[in-house]
Amino acid sequence: MYELKRRVRFYETDGMRVVYHGNYLNWLEEARVEYLRTAHIVLDDWMDMGIVFPIVEVHVKYLQSARYDDDVTVRTWLTHADRAKLVFQYEIVRDATGEVLVKAETTGTFTRMDNGRIARVPKEQIAELLRMSAEDQANYHG
Amino acid sequence: MYELKRRVRFYETDGMRVVYHGNYLNWLEEARVEYLRTAHIVLDDWMDMGIVFPIVEVHVKYLQSARYDDDVTVRTWLTHADRAKLVFQYEIVRDATGEVLVKAETTGTFTRMDNGRIARVPKEQIAELLRMSAEDQANYHG
Amino acid sequence: MYELKRRVRFYETDGMRVVYHGNYLNWLEEARVEYLRTAHIVLDDWMDMGIVFPIVEVHVKYLQSARYDDDVTVRTWLTHADRAKLVFQYEIVRDATGEVLVKAETTGTFTRMDNGRIARVPKEQIAELLRMSAEDQANYHG
Amino acid sequence: MYELKRRVRFYETDGMRVVYHGNYLNWLEEARVEYLRTAHIVLDDWMDMGIVFPIVEVHVKYLQSARYDDDVTVRTWLTHADRAKLVFQYEIVRDATGEVLVKAETTGTFTRMDNGRIARVPKEQIAELLRMSAEDQANYHG
Repeated sequence: MYELKRRVRFYETDGMRVVYHGNYLNWLEEARVEYLRTAHIVLDDWMDMGIVFPIVEVHVKYLQSARYDDDVTVRTWLTHADRAKLVFQYEIVRDATGEVLVKAETTGTFTRMDNGRIARVPKEQIAELLRMSAEDQANYHG
Repeated sequence: MYELKRRVRFYETDGMRVVYHGNYLNWLEEARVEYLRTAHIVLDDWMDMGIVFPIVEVHVKYLQSARYDDDVTVRTWLTHADRAKLVFQYEIVRDATGEVLVKAETTGTFTRMDNGRIARVPKEQIAELLRMSAEDQANYHG
Repeated sequence: MYELKRRVRFYETDGMRVVYHGNYLNWLEEARVEYLRTAHIVLDDWMDMGIVFPIVEVHVKYLQSARYDDDVTVRTWLTHADRAKLVFQYEIVRDATGEVLVKAETTGTFTRMDNGRIARVPKEQIAELLRMSAEDQANYHG
Repeated sequence: MYELKRRVRFYETDGMRVVYHGNYLNWLEEARVEYLRTAHIVLDDWMDMGIVFPIVEVHVKYLQSARYDDDVTVRTWLTHADRAKLVFQYEIVRDATGEVLVKAETTGTFTRMDNGRIARVPKEQIAELLRMSAEDQANYHG
């Protein structure tokens, strides 16, 4: 499990004075990228090797709104990992109250840039990720 | 069914040279707002009456990527409507090829601005919307 | 002079219930791209030829705020054009009242993607653009 | 002088694989907000008192591009401050190389939410800000 700490910025709010619902996807990305980095996967390096990691599915439930200047935490679990596909679960929490604001799930696939097809990456390259995912699966009670 | 016509803008693309996956939610909003307008529901007027229409759930499947300068159409169906909740289904299509790029569903609830609780709006105010939804439910084969 | 017609979207507003000041730059881009298209310059084609058109300077004055659902027009003049550099002037107007909301200027340079250096494009390729700019310079009274 | 530390996010890049030029304005806002916070000015509290701080002018020069995953610093000076107006100067630097990527200036005015007119705030409320600005003016060599 990885926890991203974050402050809500004014440019992320909308005319209802809360975070625009689409902008939470940006935070999920930030959390996912940093999760991968702790497993020694740097997306920029992979792009140089011709592999990208597009999101193919997103599911978000909005329970409460984050407001301008709130400090929030994005809790991130990798609940499925194989050589082609990664599924992350997220909870976004308001630090001041502990309220869960958003629950989300994203599915991404390793994809070859040259032909757009699914890439099956060598197990050695994602060994740490598979280990972290096993741990997350044991601990996640979403 | 409502069809929104749209051109992909450069500021909507990301470093993979396709539309950033979070930005499609903006297009869904544009389509939803214009759908509601054809049913004589103008969200800004409703906000003045103290009612907002926040999205409480989003589900998106990304099949193909929209690219810079593509002309696209957002097909929009209101597959469920009652006095408190509206469910829209969407298909985003690339005009040049007819490919379906994205399938999505959003759920929104009429909500009181003063206390954040669900509002049950008078049937008369959404009569046209209920009529359009009945038609969409008969025709939608998602 | 080119006029882009546009409706303000909810995702473009911020917590002050007006358009976030950074988002006007997106509209300038839309207007600039369509201006160039009328001169038969399609940026995507130029990118395929290895030439991009980055903005190197932006200057914006905010006079009044655009609000959600406003219809606006972005008036666009090309007040300087040569083989390496284009300067556009803009006025964003609220259609309902004729008020000028924003005045802006952007400078962009044709740039080679391979080495990041300024490209001097053949005059024939921008002949129509030079003609349109001469006309704009005669008519612009910013 | 205040320094904001920041990592470039993928959703901030565009199809040229660098940060979209409009998105730098978001970083300026982050830096400005945190600068004000060090002077005990929390914009959200001021909004509750009926005072907002809209940007009325922005001037940005783009020297080099920030790229995905770069660590950057936004150096921020308050080069003018009075009871109605604040002018900030910024330099955005790539941490790895020390290159200055962007130079910018923003002007904002304290504004009453009820009538949209300039507010002249009591000197006591911005005493710390005036002190910080005097220091910045002595040290800034933009």
